[in-house]
Amino acid sequence: MKAEILAIGTEILFGQIVDTNSAWIASRLPALGIDLYFITTVGDNQGRLVETLRRARERSDLVITTGGLGPTEDDLTREAIAELLGEQMVVVPELEEALRERFRRRGTSMPERNLKQATIVPSGQAIPNPRGTAPGWWVERDGHIIVSMPGVRQEMYLMWDTQVEPRLRDRSDGTVILSKTIKTNGLGEALVDEMLSPLLSSTNPTIGVYAKVDGIHLRLSAKAASHPAAQRLLDGLEPKVREILGNAIWGADEETPESSVGALLAERGLSLATMESCTGGLLASSVTDVPGSSSYFKGGIVSYTNQVKIESGVDARTIEAYGAVSAETATAMAAAARERLSADIGLGITGVAGPEPLEGKQPGTIFIGLASARDQRVFTGGIYLPNRPDIKQRAVVNALLFLRRYLLGIE
Amino acid sequence: MKAEILAIGTEILFGQIVDTNSAWIASRLPALGIDLYFITTVGDNQGRLVETLRRARERSDLVITTGGLGPTEDDLTREAIAELLGEQMVVVPELEEALRERFRRRGTSMPERNLKQATIVPSGQAIPNPRGTAPGWWVERDGHIIVSMPGVRQEMYLMWDTQVEPRLRDRSDGTVILSKTIKTNGLGEALVDEMLSPLLSSTNPTIGVYAKVDGIHLRLSAKAASHPAAQRLLDGLEPKVREILGNAIWGADEETPESSVGALLAERGLSLATMESCTGGLLASSVTDVPGSSSYFKGGIVSYTNQVKIESGVDARTIEAYGAVSAETATAMAAAARERLSADIGLGITGVAGPEPLEGKQPGTIFIGLASARDQRVFTGGIYLPNRPDIKQRAVVNALLFLRRYLLGIE
Repeated sequence: MKAEILAIGTEILFGQIVDTNSAWIASRLPALGIDLYFITTVGDNQGRLVETLRRARERSDLVITTGGLGPTEDDLTREAIAELLGEQMVVVPELEEALRERFRRRGTSMPERNLKQATIVPSGQAIPNPRGTAPGWWVERDGHIIVSMPGVRQEMYLMWDTQVEPRLRDRSDGTVILSKTIKTNGLGEALVDEMLSPLLSSTNPTIGVYAKVDGIHLRLSAKAASHPAAQRLLDGLEPKVREILGNAIWGADEETPESSVGALLAERGLSLATMESCTGGLLASSVTDVPGSSSYFKGGIVSYTNQVKIESGVDARTIEAYGAVSAETATAMAAAARERLSADIGLGITGVAGPEPLEGKQPGTIFIGLASARDQRVFTGGIYLPNRPDIKQRAVVNALLFLRRYLLGIE
Repeated sequence: MKAEILAIGTEILFGQIVDTNSAWIASRLPALGIDLYFITTVGDNQGRLVETLRRARERSDLVITTGGLGPTEDDLTREAIAELLGEQMVVVPELEEALRERFRRRGTSMPERNLKQATIVPSGQAIPNPRGTAPGWWVERDGHIIVSMPGVRQEMYLMWDTQVEPRLRDRSDGTVILSKTIKTNGLGEALVDEMLSPLLSSTNPTIGVYAKVDGIHLRLSAKAASHPAAQRLLDGLEPKVREILGNAIWGADEETPESSVGALLAERGLSLATMESCTGGLLASSVTDVPGSSSYFKGGIVSYTNQVKIESGVDARTIEAYGAVSAETATAMAAAARERLSADIGLGITGVAGPEPLEGKQPGTIFIGLASARDQRVFTGGIYLPNRPDIKQRAVVNALLFLRRYLLGIE
């Protein structure tokens, strides 16, 4: 089955919002054996919307739209589908009643402009939307399907998971595309490409190479008539990739540096504490993005001034002798965090987030200290990115993967 | 001038990466008086790429592409443009020499596959790329322009700012679209829509209403033959919007909750310290995303366990009597942060980030405490979002805007 996605909304064309819905939907299609060839963004203009829908419907079996289902005059997805198919929108009494009831429960009456959210065309069926006022549309005619979902992320996610994906699964011809993502760090994209070159010419399974904030990712994909057959193709390829890249690999699929470290800490019954200056709390925040992190994370100190560092246990003489941005201070911060917060392991980050240099050190300079009962280590890095949030994020990735290597004894 | 954007890369169609380049470019076109009607994503397939380029070129004066300029066989943007125009790609000796020199400086020789990055078609000119091996292409024929830039964000940004935008500005007919974004919080989208309804029917200037993580944003846009004329249209509309929405407005344009609070603190010479549990450091990290935040931010404590809270100055009896997730503990955390870190103002956040309830309280429950020399306040909120990172982010926005209102004396 060939699909394409239409993201509808003038605010996307103004660059006001980034269309993340399309990527989310796109990532779910391969497992259904659906090929995606195009994603198009079009504004809230009925003429261009009809034109775009027509072309998409001509060249694809399935057209998935997001956005334009609200109650306002700018929301034109329903009108465009009706015009394209030459059908009339009619109010469905049950939908109207459900909508009015929804407003009554909030203690208000339904504005009449919302009534169009209770309509459907004869070729269509409404798709329930438990999280909002806009039902989706499933419109099927002449062997082509148009699925329209709201642009509001949380409404769309639920509608897809509970309504759209199950229906599409029923239509699937059984072809399956399976993928596995292998995540590396410490090697450049060109080097990874070169190392893997003997494998890159394969057309099934395939390998894609992508640069991400936490390193180079490899996407292994296999297409086959069944799930087990696709899995066998992947299983044949993965060990070859792992042998070539070895310890540069730190994770796979949904794993993040923080989930990987979290699993290791939990498994070993070790606790963690942090002290950070240039990353300003982002290290602690990343650690606590993982559900269940309270079982191993004691807490952190954001020591944005030297005074706070010293009061939290860093020796003032260390800062004076080596500077706040130094390997010695990073190690002292790690040791102080460990001690002050009664943790097995302490991590300390100090550096220059920019835009101005500090103590004569350039933005992007970072030192990561690690302290355990046994020993202390330090990692020195230079991050050549132009803005504070990016430098902070990269520093946090470096710190977490440094801790991971330490826990696994990888030098 | 009518434009469209093509994002090129199979990894986007797999949902492996979100196309943020298009939104970035899109946001820069209005000031050049360029209208954007379509954004299309297409994979690394020459046939579909040529088809998409042809349609884009037929209906637009300017086609801007990103991606597909790398050295590999998958990188087909140049080949597709050459095929579309029926022109031959030829190696430019100066580009080849620059490329070889680039590799020599790295101490390696150029792989022959990189040679295609030194090519151009007769209707085209190479656009220098100081940050990478792939020059861009500016191809102009029969009154249509194709501008091709690399997909790597940092390379593309610099190429756009220094090369592409200046050339486009020279072509501009003088029409200018100016925009101003007004940011509100505490009102729902439908309510804002209703309050502004007398203004929403205007076609120039226009108002767009968008829901964001930090509240409802309004985009005011005006189109005119000159910058001053467009500015006058905006200046006429903005006071009307401000009168209707009053204190719900907290910022404009590039302002963020953290930059708004930061400016107020800096202006008044006040310092800030934080203690957070459920947000796990994200509050401190957001505060320190602002350049210059070290002048007012003392630091923060991430008190992920009750033990850390108590050791940092929260009375154990408060936690015992009211729970760790309570208004009383939030206030005690704020007061302890203020005292422990010697700041003028303390902010404390406690709550349930989920996915599991805590102390019988549901995920999304948050309490934000504020302590100054004068008084203590608390804000209680419920955040109905399904995942930890979203709940954390919304809680941080609430905390920062709560502090902003306090500093401005807004009840």
